[in-house]
Amino acid sequence: MRMYDIIQKKRQLCELTFEELQFFVNGYVSGEIPDYQASALLMAICFAGMTDNETANLTKIMASSGDILDLSAFGSDSVDKHSTGGVGDKTTLIIAPIVASLGCKVAKLSGRGLGHTGGTLDKLESIKGYNTSLSSAQFMSVAEKCGICVCGAGENLVPADKKLYALRDVTATVSSIPLIVSSIMSKKLAGGANTIVLDVKTGSGAFMKTYEDSLELARRMVSIGKLSGKKVSAVITNMDRPLGRNIGNALEVAEAYNLLCGKTESNDLLEICITLSAEMVSRSKDEPFEISREKVVEVLQTGKAKETFLKWIGLQGGDISVLDSAAFSSAKYKTEVLSPADGYISSADAEGMGITAMMLGAGRQTKADVIDMRAGIIQKACVGDKVKKGEVIAILQSDTVEDHTNAAERWLKSLAITDTPPANQPLVYDIIR
Amino acid sequence: MRMYDIIQKKRQLCELTFEELQFFVNGYVSGEIPDYQASALLMAICFAGMTDNETANLTKIMASSGDILDLSAFGSDSVDKHSTGGVGDKTTLIIAPIVASLGCKVAKLSGRGLGHTGGTLDKLESIKGYNTSLSSAQFMSVAEKCGICVCGAGENLVPADKKLYALRDVTATVSSIPLIVSSIMSKKLAGGANTIVLDVKTGSGAFMKTYEDSLELARRMVSIGKLSGKKVSAVITNMDRPLGRNIGNALEVAEAYNLLCGKTESNDLLEICITLSAEMVSRSKDEPFEISREKVVEVLQTGKAKETFLKWIGLQGGDISVLDSAAFSSAKYKTEVLSPADGYISSADAEGMGITAMMLGAGRQTKADVIDMRAGIIQKACVGDKVKKGEVIAILQSDTVEDHTNAAERWLKSLAITDTPPANQPLVYDIIR
Repeated sequence: MRMYDIIQKKRQLCELTFEELQFFVNGYVSGEIPDYQASALLMAICFAGMTDNETANLTKIMASSGDILDLSAFGSDSVDKHSTGGVGDKTTLIIAPIVASLGCKVAKLSGRGLGHTGGTLDKLESIKGYNTSLSSAQFMSVAEKCGICVCGAGENLVPADKKLYALRDVTATVSSIPLIVSSIMSKKLAGGANTIVLDVKTGSGAFMKTYEDSLELARRMVSIGKLSGKKVSAVITNMDRPLGRNIGNALEVAEAYNLLCGKTESNDLLEICITLSAEMVSRSKDEPFEISREKVVEVLQTGKAKETFLKWIGLQGGDISVLDSAAFSSAKYKTEVLSPADGYISSADAEGMGITAMMLGAGRQTKADVIDMRAGIIQKACVGDKVKKGEVIAILQSDTVEDHTNAAERWLKSLAITDTPPANQPLVYDIIR
Repeated sequence: MRMYDIIQKKRQLCELTFEELQFFVNGYVSGEIPDYQASALLMAICFAGMTDNETANLTKIMASSGDILDLSAFGSDSVDKHSTGGVGDKTTLIIAPIVASLGCKVAKLSGRGLGHTGGTLDKLESIKGYNTSLSSAQFMSVAEKCGICVCGAGENLVPADKKLYALRDVTATVSSIPLIVSSIMSKKLAGGANTIVLDVKTGSGAFMKTYEDSLELARRMVSIGKLSGKKVSAVITNMDRPLGRNIGNALEVAEAYNLLCGKTESNDLLEICITLSAEMVSRSKDEPFEISREKVVEVLQTGKAKETFLKWIGLQGGDISVLDSAAFSSAKYKTEVLSPADGYISSADAEGMGITAMMLGAGRQTKADVIDMRAGIIQKACVGDKVKKGEVIAILQSDTVEDHTNAAERWLKSLAITDTPPANQPLVYDIIR
């Protein structure tokens, strides 16, 4: 078999066989196939596409390129959740305790943030003592005791995706649906859970800007998951604006904890968490969605989900005593952003807001950057809210960056204020099963 | 400017600017842009195509990446001819003396053969003493004296094409019309001639297998040549079967010389040479094609073209005394191939026949291979001829390869013998100006 012939075949719009895809992935990971042949094939895939069968094969081969988490001890209770990436997306911190309170097991390896979106691992590390590096035995033991364990993904989780993604990132071959699907789903397959719920974001702050593209991505991921023997659902949700009020690591933990305590200022965040949790429970337990939804609302109301959260954080070494204190998410330097006009906030560019958070120190521009855990933004007014000129619409904060002038400008550039209120947008567009 | 954005722009089917193409070509030649980004862009071009304007810009930029031959001393008399590559194609050896006899100047840098097609330089080197490495002054002086000089292209003739072609060759990005056009035409522009006639081969033995593709290639090359201020014609000719009787270096020189002496067994070869020569003279002198054609026939009949040939070869150091001897193109080992059946030769796969010649030692599989100058094939029966079972249809010969069994088998596999004669095929399909 020759890599040349595989590239040529895809150029001629033909379907690649399992063996050909395996030759490519294994050869590329081992270094026998050079970058320039791999990038030529990736570009050909961007144009020629891949069938579901091809994408499922590529996904399985990529998943098998490294370790696969063995969650068989949890039987059909193992569940996983994935978000295609958003700004202010702290849903994992809320959903994991909810579904664990209902008998599901969330034992997952998570990633760090890069660019304008944050990573769950970074958020959790804003809690002093939280340990993201457990042994396999500790990992399983924590998940067994509280239903949750979230650790960092090691180097050997889908090494094929790491190497291919790095190449796609510099050759303009990221935005290809079969390549996105295989990248996400290979990590989910390697994650070992039985039930997988995907939160596919759509809108200006999401990777997929249009509903049609998001729907296509959602359908393909569900299809590939099924072909791999998993229960998979995709929930298409709005990411035209940031999710919830707070952006930044400690700020988002605080917002998630408040929601679990029954105090939330964001109905959007609450609603998306309830929907995603209900879908996970419903698929995992094979029970009707509405029944699962009622149970989800109940564990939030009774405080059971909050208890599970505290147990989990404690078992992973986190100092839960700080969570009730305002100091946990407060920072040294604060700047109030004032509304420049009377009117309604009619749109909020989530990507621009994520970039503002990065400018304050809340995110990484390069992998080597160190995060300021307290840096971020508290939104005082969100899309749809009526504001007066001079009113505080956001608070920017940080422990390291002293001058917030540029960040405040960037924030204001992300907002539009108009005379009439904006039309209501759906929060959850669709659930694909 | 970033290479990433240029790849992304082409992926989105947009036209690249002169500056963007220059950034790419210069950056790739200097080594600043890595192979994997270049191959991603090349594959995107294969799918997205390029406008004539883009292709003309790419061609000019590539031509300027190295030395450009200064033929201004010859004014509008400088002419060049290019063949897209065929088996048994010895036309340059015949056409150059014809057009030089009519006042044109053929001062060109030529290449060597690779794969199943031969190179003019290799053919010329089968004449003992022929020197392919002259200084610039010698090169111009020989061309001034006899109207012809053919030398080897140095390392600095379109280095961008050398580097890009090597990458295309291993990434399945050769067969893209704008990339083929820019590769061929950049070398023609750097070759410095005022008038360029392109012999675009079509059929099973050609790079372009269908007439439609050949026509498209011809049109694009003529268009790009015009945009670069050159007089360009493209003659689309048949390459369903080898051109003429002989395949192999000394054998082809002998056939060309015999034709110039008025002895040819191949009307196809004669007709194509007359057409191409007439087109070159007609475009160069701005005179009607039919007038030029009459003059071409005349210099063949009077022997003037043969005299010019001998003067040229002599001036470049070649031993012309050997050309009239049968020993010049005879070889140590000879094998007769017999017809396996009664009937008509209805088709001859030129590519398979070129491969047979390579198996005998007449061509290179890799750049490092040494050529057996006397190796090759003499066809005793060609397409359309009636043959009897057991009749000699070809003679295989070589100085080094002793056993011709496999080559004879390959030769027979390239032929079809049928009960009825094949339909006549046109020899010259079209002339695009």
